[in-house]
Amino acid sequence: MKKEQDTVCPIALAQRIVGDRWTILVIRELLLGNHRFEEIQAQTQATPQMLASRLKKLESDGVIERRPYNDRPPRHEYHLTDMGIALHPVLLALRAWGETWCKSKKQEIAIHYTHIPCGKNPGLGPTCKACGEVLRRQDLSAKLSKSFDAERQERTGAPGRRRDEEAQAG
Amino acid sequence: MKKEQDTVCPIALAQRIVGDRWTILVIRELLLGNHRFEEIQAQTQATPQMLASRLKKLESDGVIERRPYNDRPPRHEYHLTDMGIALHPVLLALRAWGETWCKSKKQEIAIHYTHIPCGKNPGLGPTCKACGEVLRRQDLSAKLSKSFDAERQERTGAPGRRRDEEAQAG
Repeated sequence: MKKEQDTVCPIALAQRIVGDRWTILVIRELLLGNHRFEEIQAQTQATPQMLASRLKKLESDGVIERRPYNDRPPRHEYHLTDMGIALHPVLLALRAWGETWCKSKKQEIAIHYTHIPCGKNPGLGPTCKACGEVLRRQDLSAKLSKSFDAERQERTGAPGRRRDEEAQAG
Repeated sequence: MKKEQDTVCPIALAQRIVGDRWTILVIRELLLGNHRFEEIQAQTQATPQMLASRLKKLESDGVIERRPYNDRPPRHEYHLTDMGIALHPVLLALRAWGETWCKSKKQEIAIHYTHIPCGKNPGLGPTCKACGEVLRRQDLSAKLSKSFDAERQERTGAPGRRRDEEAQAG
Protein backbone atom coordinates (compact mmCIF):
# COMPACT_ATOMS: atom_id res chain seq x y z
CA MET A 1 0.00 0.00 0.00
CA LYS A 2 2.98 2.32 -0.34
CA LYS A 3 1.99 3.49 -3.81
CA GLU A 4 0.77 7.01 -4.43
CA GLN A 5 -2.76 7.56 -3.14
CA ASP A 6 -5.47 10.00 -4.17
CA THR A 7 -6.17 11.11 -0.60
CA VAL A 8 -4.03 11.79 2.44
CA CYS A 9 -6.87 10.85 4.82
CA PRO A 10 -5.65 7.85 6.83
CA ILE A 11 -9.21 6.88 7.75
CA ALA A 12 -10.34 6.75 4.12
CA LEU A 13 -7.23 4.72 3.22
CA ALA A 14 -7.75 2.34 6.15
CA GLN A 15 -11.38 1.82 5.18
CA ARG A 16 -10.40 0.77 1.67
CA ILE A 17 -8.70 -2.19 3.33
CA VAL A 18 -10.82 -2.93 6.42
CA GLY A 19 -14.05 -1.05 5.68
CA ASP A 20 -16.20 -4.15 5.55
CA ARG A 21 -17.81 -6.02 8.44
CA TRP A 22 -16.72 -9.45 7.21
CA THR A 23 -13.14 -8.32 6.96
CA ILE A 24 -13.15 -7.12 10.56
CA LEU A 25 -14.64 -10.47 11.69
CA VAL A 26 -11.89 -12.32 9.82
CA ILE A 27 -9.28 -10.23 11.63
CA ARG A 28 -11.04 -10.92 14.94
CA GLU A 29 -10.69 -14.65 14.29
CA LEU A 30 -7.03 -14.40 13.34
CA LEU A 31 -6.34 -12.38 16.50
CA LEU A 32 -8.18 -15.07 18.51
CA GLY A 33 -5.88 -17.71 17.03
CA ASN A 34 -8.11 -19.32 14.39
CA HIS A 35 -6.09 -19.68 11.23
CA ARG A 36 -7.89 -22.20 9.04
CA PHE A 37 -10.51 -21.47 6.41
CA GLU A 38 -13.18 -23.76 7.87
CA GLU A 39 -12.78 -22.39 11.41
CA ILE A 40 -12.91 -18.80 10.21
CA GLN A 41 -15.92 -19.56 8.08
CA ALA A 42 -17.81 -21.21 10.96
CA GLN A 43 -17.16 -18.33 13.34
CA THR A 44 -17.80 -15.46 10.94
CA GLN A 45 -20.72 -17.31 9.29
CA ALA A 46 -19.65 -15.94 5.94
CA THR A 47 -20.25 -18.01 2.84
CA PRO A 48 -17.15 -19.69 1.37
CA GLN A 49 -17.25 -17.27 -1.57
CA MET A 50 -17.48 -14.20 0.65
CA LEU A 51 -14.67 -15.42 2.88
CA ALA A 52 -12.42 -16.38 -0.02
CA SER A 53 -12.76 -12.94 -1.62
CA ARG A 54 -11.96 -11.17 1.68
CA LEU A 55 -8.91 -13.36 2.34
CA LYS A 56 -7.61 -12.78 -1.17
CA LYS A 57 -7.94 -9.01 -0.85
CA LEU A 58 -6.39 -8.96 2.65
CA GLU A 59 -3.43 -10.93 1.31
CA SER A 60 -2.93 -8.59 -1.64
CA ASP A 61 -3.19 -5.58 0.70
CA GLY A 62 -0.44 -7.05 2.91
CA VAL A 63 -2.59 -7.60 6.02
CA ILE A 64 -2.39 -11.41 6.06
CA GLU A 65 -0.13 -14.10 4.65
CA ARG A 66 -0.68 -17.76 3.80
CA ARG A 67 1.47 -20.44 5.40
CA PRO A 68 1.42 -24.06 4.20
CA TYR A 69 0.67 -26.68 6.85
CA ASN A 70 0.10 -29.71 4.67
CA ASP A 71 1.70 -30.94 1.43
CA ARG A 72 -0.71 -33.63 0.20
CA PRO A 73 -3.25 -32.26 -0.29
CA PRO A 74 -1.78 -28.74 -0.23
CA ARG A 75 -3.36 -26.78 2.62
CA HIS A 76 -2.50 -23.46 4.18
CA GLU A 77 -3.33 -21.33 7.18
CA TYR A 78 -3.87 -17.59 7.30
CA HIS A 79 -1.77 -15.42 9.60
CA LEU A 80 -1.66 -11.70 10.27
CA THR A 81 1.43 -9.83 9.09
CA ASP A 82 2.87 -7.02 11.21
CA MET A 83 0.51 -4.70 9.36
CA GLY A 84 -2.38 -6.94 10.37
CA ILE A 85 -1.35 -7.31 14.01
CA ALA A 86 -1.18 -3.50 14.13
CA LEU A 87 -4.98 -3.49 13.76
CA HIS A 88 -5.33 -4.72 17.34
CA PRO A 89 -6.02 -1.20 18.74
CA VAL A 90 -8.81 -0.76 16.15
CA LEU A 91 -10.53 -3.96 17.29
CA LEU A 92 -9.97 -3.04 20.93
CA ALA A 93 -11.70 0.31 20.32
CA LEU A 94 -14.57 -1.42 18.49
CA ARG A 95 -14.87 -3.86 21.40
CA ALA A 96 -15.09 -1.01 23.91
CA TRP A 97 -17.77 0.74 21.87
CA GLY A 98 -19.73 -2.46 21.23
CA GLU A 99 -19.65 -3.56 24.87
CA THR A 100 -20.75 -0.10 25.98
CA TRP A 101 -23.36 0.83 23.38
CA CYS A 102 -24.57 -2.21 21.46
CA LYS A 103 -25.53 -4.83 24.04
CA SER A 104 -28.60 -5.55 26.11
CA LYS A 105 -28.16 -5.39 29.88
CA LYS A 106 -28.70 -9.12 30.17
CA GLN A 107 -25.76 -9.93 27.90
CA GLU A 108 -22.49 -11.01 29.43
CA ILE A 109 -19.15 -9.56 28.35
CA ALA A 110 -17.68 -11.60 25.46
CA ILE A 111 -14.07 -11.89 26.60
CA HIS A 112 -12.55 -11.48 30.05
CA TYR A 113 -9.04 -10.09 29.75
CA THR A 114 -6.26 -10.13 32.29
CA HIS A 115 -3.53 -7.52 31.96
CA ILE A 116 -0.48 -9.74 32.42
CA PRO A 117 1.95 -7.07 33.74
CA CYS A 118 -0.33 -6.15 36.67
CA GLY A 119 -2.51 -9.27 36.87
CA LYS A 120 -5.75 -7.25 36.97
CA ASN A 121 -8.87 -6.83 34.83
CA PRO A 122 -7.86 -3.96 32.51
CA GLY A 123 -11.41 -2.88 31.62
CA LEU A 124 -12.21 -1.67 28.11
CA GLY A 125 -9.05 0.35 27.44
CA PRO A 126 -7.24 1.98 25.78
CA THR A 127 -5.28 2.01 29.07
CA CYS A 128 -5.47 -0.49 31.93
CA LYS A 129 -7.97 0.73 34.51
CA ALA A 130 -5.85 -0.91 37.21
CA CYS A 131 -2.29 0.16 36.39
CA GLY A 132 -2.74 2.83 33.69
CA GLU A 133 -0.51 1.28 31.03
CA VAL A 134 -1.59 1.28 27.38
CA LEU A 135 -3.11 -2.14 26.57
CA ARG A 136 -0.91 -4.00 24.12
CA ARG A 137 -1.97 -7.26 22.53
CA GLN A 138 1.01 -9.21 23.91
CA ASP A 139 0.17 -8.11 27.46
CA LEU A 140 -3.40 -9.42 27.40
CA SER A 141 -4.52 -12.90 28.35
CA ALA A 142 -8.01 -13.72 27.07
CA LYS A 143 -10.68 -16.00 28.53
CA LEU A 144 -13.97 -16.41 26.68
CA SER A 145 -17.05 -15.80 28.81
CA LYS A 146 -19.51 -18.67 29.21
CA SER A 147 -21.98 -17.17 26.72
CA PHE A 148 -19.39 -16.40 24.07
CA ASP A 149 -17.80 -19.81 24.46
CA ALA A 150 -21.20 -21.53 24.14
CA GLU A 151 -22.09 -19.42 21.10
CA ARG A 152 -18.80 -20.27 19.40
CA GLN A 153 -19.09 -23.97 20.15
CA GLU A 154 -22.58 -24.00 18.70
CA ARG A 155 -21.29 -22.43 15.50
CA THR A 156 -18.56 -25.03 15.17
CA GLY A 157 -21.14 -27.77 15.61
CA ALA A 158 -23.41 -26.34 12.97
CA PRO A 159 -21.33 -24.61 10.30
CA GLY A 160 -23.36 -22.72 7.76
CA ARG A 161 -26.33 -22.22 10.03
CA ARG A 162 -28.04 -18.90 9.31
CA ARG A 163 -25.85 -18.48 6.30
CA ASP A 164 -28.63 -17.15 4.07
CA GLU A 165 -29.69 -14.57 6.60
CA GLU A 166 -26.11 -13.36 7.12
CA ALA A 167 -25.45 -13.17 3.41
CA GLN A 168 -28.48 -10.92 3.02
CA ALA A 169 -27.31 -8.67 5.85
CA GLY A 170 -23.83 -8.43 4.32
CA MET B 1 -29.72 -1.31 20.16
CA LYS B 2 -30.64 -2.54 23.63
CA LYS B 3 -32.81 -5.36 22.31
CA GLU B 4 -31.76 -8.97 22.69
CA GLN B 5 -28.97 -9.91 20.29
CA ASP B 6 -27.93 -13.23 18.80
CA THR B 7 -24.27 -12.77 19.69
CA VAL B 8 -22.41 -11.36 22.67
CA CYS B 9 -19.44 -10.35 20.52
CA PRO B 10 -19.15 -6.56 20.77
CA ILE B 11 -17.09 -6.38 17.59
CA ALA B 12 -19.73 -8.21 15.56
CA LEU B 13 -22.45 -5.98 17.03
CA ALA B 14 -20.44 -2.82 16.37
CA GLN B 15 -19.83 -3.89 12.78
CA ARG B 16 -23.55 -4.26 12.15
CA ILE B 17 -23.75 -0.52 12.73
CA VAL B 18 -20.42 0.86 11.48
CA GLY B 19 -19.08 -2.01 9.36
CA ASP B 20 -19.17 -0.09 6.12
CA ARG B 21 -16.58 2.31 4.74
CA TRP B 22 -19.09 4.99 3.79
CA THR B 23 -20.55 4.97 7.27
CA ILE B 24 -17.12 5.57 8.80
CA LEU B 25 -16.49 8.44 6.36
CA VAL B 26 -19.83 9.99 7.35
CA ILE B 27 -18.82 9.81 11.00
CA ARG B 28 -15.44 11.35 10.14
CA GLU B 29 -17.24 14.31 8.58
CA LEU B 30 -19.57 14.75 11.55
CA LEU B 31 -16.58 14.65 13.92
CA LEU B 32 -14.87 17.27 11.72
CA GLY B 33 -17.91 19.54 12.08
CA ASN B 34 -19.65 19.06 8.74
CA HIS B 35 -23.34 18.56 9.41
CA ARG B 36 -25.16 19.17 6.12
CA PHE B 37 -26.04 16.60 3.49
CA GLU B 38 -24.31 18.41 0.61
CA GLU B 39 -21.07 18.94 2.55
CA ILE B 40 -20.97 15.34 3.70
CA GLN B 41 -21.69 14.15 0.20
CA ALA B 42 -18.92 16.26 -1.32
CA GLN B 43 -16.31 15.09 1.19
CA THR B 44 -17.22 11.40 1.25
CA GLN B 45 -17.89 11.36 -2.53
CA ALA B 46 -20.81 9.03 -1.94
CA THR B 47 -23.79 9.24 -4.26
CA PRO B 48 -26.90 10.91 -2.77
CA GLN B 49 -28.63 7.53 -2.60
CA MET B 50 -25.74 5.85 -0.80
CA LEU B 51 -25.43 8.71 1.66
CA ALA B 52 -29.17 8.88 2.33
CA SER B 53 -29.35 5.16 3.13
CA ARG B 54 -26.38 5.37 5.52
CA LEU B 55 -27.79 8.42 7.31
CA LYS B 56 -31.17 6.75 7.69
CA LYS B 57 -29.64 3.61 9.19
CA LEU B 58 -27.32 5.58 11.50
CA GLU B 59 -30.33 7.53 12.76
CA SER B 60 -32.37 4.39 13.41
CA ASP B 61 -29.38 2.81 15.18
CA GLY B 62 -29.13 5.84 17.48
CA VAL B 63 -25.73 7.05 16.28
CA ILE B 64 -26.89 10.36 14.76
CA GLU B 65 -29.88 12.67 15.10
CA ARG B 66 -31.45 15.20 12.77
CA ARG B 67 -31.81 18.82 13.85
CA PRO B 68 -33.86 21.32 11.84
CA TYR B 69 -32.05 24.50 10.80
CA ASN B 70 -34.57 25.93 8.36
CA ASP B 71 -38.37 26.00 8.23
CA ARG B 72 -39.15 27.02 4.67
CA PRO B 73 -38.08 24.91 2.98
CA PRO B 74 -37.63 22.37 5.81
CA ARG B 75 -33.93 21.51 6.15
CA HIS B 76 -32.01 19.65 8.79
CA GLU B 77 -28.47 18.97 9.88
CA TYR B 78 -27.03 15.68 11.12
CA HIS B 79 -25.36 15.51 14.51
CA LEU B 80 -23.71 12.68 16.44
CA THR B 81 -25.51 11.48 19.57
CA ASP B 82 -23.51 10.49 22.64
CA MET B 83 -23.38 7.00 21.15
CA GLY B 84 -21.92 8.49 17.97
CA ILE B 85 -19.39 10.73 19.71
CA ALA B 86 -18.24 7.62 21.58
CA LEU B 87 -16.90 6.32 18.25
CA HIS B 88 -14.05 8.84 18.42
CA PRO B 89 -11.51 6.28 19.78
CA VAL B 90 -12.38 3.94 16.89
CA LEU B 91 -11.62 6.65 14.33
CA LEU B 92 -8.49 7.66 16.24
CA ALA B 93 -7.26 4.04 16.08
CA LEU B 94 -8.08 3.83 12.36
CA ARG B 95 -6.20 7.12 11.84
CA ALA B 96 -3.13 5.74 13.63
CA TRP B 97 -3.19 2.56 11.55
CA GLY B 98 -3.82 4.41 8.29
CA GLU B 99 -1.08 6.98 8.88
CA THR B 100 1.38 4.23 9.79
CA TRP B 101 0.56 1.50 7.27
CA CYS B 102 -1.44 2.87 4.35
CA LYS B 103 0.41 5.94 3.09
CA SER B 104 3.31 6.57 0.76
CA LYS B 105 6.35 8.25 2.27
CA LYS B 106 5.73 11.37 0.22
CA GLN B 107 2.28 11.91 1.71
CA GLU B 108 1.84 14.48 4.43
CA ILE B 109 -0.11 13.75 7.62
CA ALA B 110 -3.80 14.63 7.14
CA ILE B 111 -4.50 16.45 10.41
CA HIS B 112 -2.11 18.09 12.85
CA TYR B 113 -3.49 17.81 16.38
CA THR B 114 -2.54 19.80 19.43
CA HIS B 115 -3.23 18.25 22.82
CA ILE B 116 -4.82 21.23 24.55
CA PRO B 117 -3.97 20.27 28.18
CA CYS B 118 -0.21 20.13 27.47
CA GLY B 119 0.00 22.21 24.30
CA LYS B 120 2.08 19.61 22.47
CA ASN B 121 1.73 17.36 19.41
CA PRO B 122 0.16 14.20 20.89
CA GLY B 123 1.30 11.83 18.11
CA LEU B 124 -1.00 9.05 16.95
CA GLY B 125 -2.33 7.97 20.36
CA PRO B 126 -4.06 6.38 22.15
CA THR B 127 -2.12 8.39 24.75
CA CYS B 128 -0.35 11.73 24.28
CA LYS B 129 3.30 11.11 23.43
CA ALA B 130 4.20 14.32 25.26
CA CYS B 131 2.24 14.09 28.54
CA GLY B 132 0.94 10.48 28.58
CA GLU B 133 -2.75 11.28 29.03
CA VAL B 134 -5.38 9.34 27.08
CA LEU B 135 -6.41 11.42 24.05
CA ARG B 136 -10.00 12.56 24.39
CA ARG B 137 -11.86 14.30 21.61
CA GLN B 138 -12.55 17.43 23.65
CA ASP B 139 -8.85 17.83 24.43
CA LEU B 140 -7.72 17.87 20.80
CA SER B 141 -7.45 20.89 18.58
CA ALA B 142 -7.27 20.00 14.88
CA LYS B 143 -5.55 21.76 12.01
CA LEU B 144 -5.80 20.33 8.50
CA SER B 145 -2.48 19.85 6.75
CA LYS B 146 -1.89 21.73 3.49
CA SER B 147 -2.49 18.62 1.37
CA PHE B 148 -5.66 17.55 3.17
CA ASP B 149 -7.03 21.08 3.10
CA ALA B 150 -6.33 21.38 -0.63
CA GLU B 151 -7.90 18.00 -1.32
CA ARG B 152 -11.03 18.95 0.63
CA GLN B 153 -11.35 22.31 -1.07
CA GLU B 154 -11.06 20.66 -4.44
CA ARG B 155 -13.89 18.29 -3.54
CA THR B 156 -16.13 21.15 -2.49
CA GLY B 157 -15.41 22.93 -5.76
CA ALA B 158 -16.28 19.90 -7.83
CA PRO B 159 -18.92 17.85 -6.03
CA GLY B 160 -19.64 14.54 -7.63
CA ARG B 161 -16.24 14.27 -9.26
CA ARG B 162 -15.16 10.63 -9.52
CA ARG B 163 -18.58 9.59 -8.27
CA ASP B 164 -18.86 6.68 -10.70
CA GLU B 165 -15.49 5.30 -9.73
CA GLU B 166 -16.27 5.54 -6.02
CA ALA B 167 -19.66 3.94 -6.45
CA GLN B 168 -17.98 0.98 -8.12
CA ALA B 169 -15.44 0.69 -5.34
CA GLY B 170 -18.19 0.78 -2.73
